[in-house]
Amino acid sequence: MGFWGIEVKPGKPQTFDPESEDGKLHVTQATLGDGFGREKSVIQCSIGGKAPVYLCSLLTNKTECCPLNLEFDDEDGIVEFLVTGTRSIHLSGYLEAYEEEEEDELH
Amino acid sequence: MGFWGIEVKPGKPQTFDPESEDGKLHVTQATLGDGFGREKSVIQCSIGGKAPVYLCSLLTNKTECCPLNLEFDDEDGIVEFLVTGTRSIHLSGYLEAYEEEEEDELH
Amino acid sequence: MGFWGIEVKPGKPQTFDPESEDGKLHVTQATLGDGFGREKSVIQCSIGGKAPVYLCSLLTNKTECCPLNLEFDDEDGIVEFLVTGTRSIHLSGYLEAYEEEEEDELH
Amino acid sequence: MGFWGIEVKPGKPQTFDPESEDGKLHVTQATLGDGFGREKSVIQCSIGGKAPVYLCSLLTNKTECCPLNLEFDDEDGIVEFLVTGTRSIHLSGYLEAYEEEEEDELH
Amino acid sequence: MGFWGIEVKPGKPQTFDPESEDGKLHVTQATLGDGFGREKSVIQCSIGGKAPVYLCSLLTNKTECCPLNLEFDDEDGIVEFLVTGTRSIHLSGYLEAYEEEEEDELH
Repeated sequence: MGFWGIEVKPGKPQTFDPESEDGKLHVTQATLGDGFGREKSVIQCSIGGKAPVYLCSLLTNKTECCPLNLEFDDEDGIVEFLVTGTRSIHLSGYLEAYEEEEEDELH
Repeated sequence: MGFWGIEVKPGKPQTFDPESEDGKLHVTQATLGDGFGREKSVIQCSIGGKAPVYLCSLLTNKTECCPLNLEFDDEDGIVEFLVTGTRSIHLSGYLEAYEEEEEDELH
Repeated sequence: MGFWGIEVKPGKPQTFDPESEDGKLHVTQATLGDGFGREKSVIQCSIGGKAPVYLCSLLTNKTECCPLNLEFDDEDGIVEFLVTGTRSIHLSGYLEAYEEEEEDELH
Repeated sequence: MGFWGIEVKPGKPQTFDPESEDGKLHVTQATLGDGFGREKSVIQCSIGGKAPVYLCSLLTNKTECCPLNLEFDDEDGIVEFLVTGTRSIHLSGYLEAYEEEEEDELH
Repeated sequence: MGFWGIEVKPGKPQTFDPESEDGKLHVTQATLGDGFGREKSVIQCSIGGKAPVYLCSLLTNKTECCPLNLEFDDEDGIVEFLVTGTRSIHLSGYLEAYEEEEEDELH
């Protein structure tokens, strides 16, 4: 399945629907995008109307990237990523094929 | 099972009961929440009355997030997370289904 | 299979073809290379003409290395790594043999 | 098996005997404890009289926590953790049950 | 198999021969050693005469440790670790027993 990545721009929520993928999504890195903003940028995620949870907080010229280790699968509803701050955040990771048993169970 | 996340506010302990979940909890990230406090915020956990253990220590404007790799399962008692400092800490991670054998053994 | 590493120099894209390897590539670390540049160095990757995704952003004398956790396998097309900034970035990681079933399925 | 954590105070070595546990110990995080010291605190470990190895070095108000990924199992002798510096270091992680085959082999 | 660690002193290359071990080596942490040097210390590795790859770059009083995630196995030749800078770097990690099938295949 391999590599996965998106850029999330400030104030423009991006959604990910785990059911539309053949594999489980592992999000493993967040990196600050381009721009001139000096405020911090925070990326949060929310699923199915639950309170958003902050995933990481990046600081221009101090901490511009951070490892993550998150998993999103078929049993999650649609995931919404939102960035607050003035610069975008790039998320990267990979998709992992579901094991066959798991697949049988889920479908 | 997928994504898991909570916000723990300063001085307001939050509990997690591994037995109430169908999977093992992996806590993989801590991120500083909103607020104006400039002191550091520390999150600790304690299980079954044992001495609390510090899980991470976040510094406003310096280190606002930190990867973790903790597991809590059925054999742990109720877990209490507590934040000291002036800002909340968001914990995120994921739940992993128990393997069937494990389940047989445990129930 | 073991260790894997390359140096990517600024402005000189380097490609990796997952099909040319017997295993899945795990890229697990980025480290700033030699040079005198004081701007930041960012490494990005793009696959099959998709928009590039930033993998990490390193800062001379502040954050000179960063853990990653990326996977590239047979199902990915050719991967292009590109560094922007004035210093090179060394990527390291390891190759993991494909499981036999996977191999059957893929070939 | 789940969560594991200890506090190691400066100059007071703490030992861990892998044989006394039913699982393999994963130490995954180090966090600076309370105190007013401003020197750095370093945690080291030594096994069976071998030269001690530094596991991480924490800096007050700069880097107060650090992810680790260490494993200690039945085949290790008694492990001694020692902190040098003026503040304690909290270690956290989890115990993982040995796989049955492994157990047969080991006992 | 459990814990593994070495100290690599500046300018004194240290070799590791994966074939001399019963398991696969996982190197998971680098920590700055003692000394008064204020330059940065970089650890690199090279295998079988290939160009050296930087594994991490540590900065006195700023970033004194860094998680790694590297694997070295039987199929790698002899690995040479070299530190440039004025302070030593301690590497730690663990050895993981080869799975039986793997062993059959390899020997």
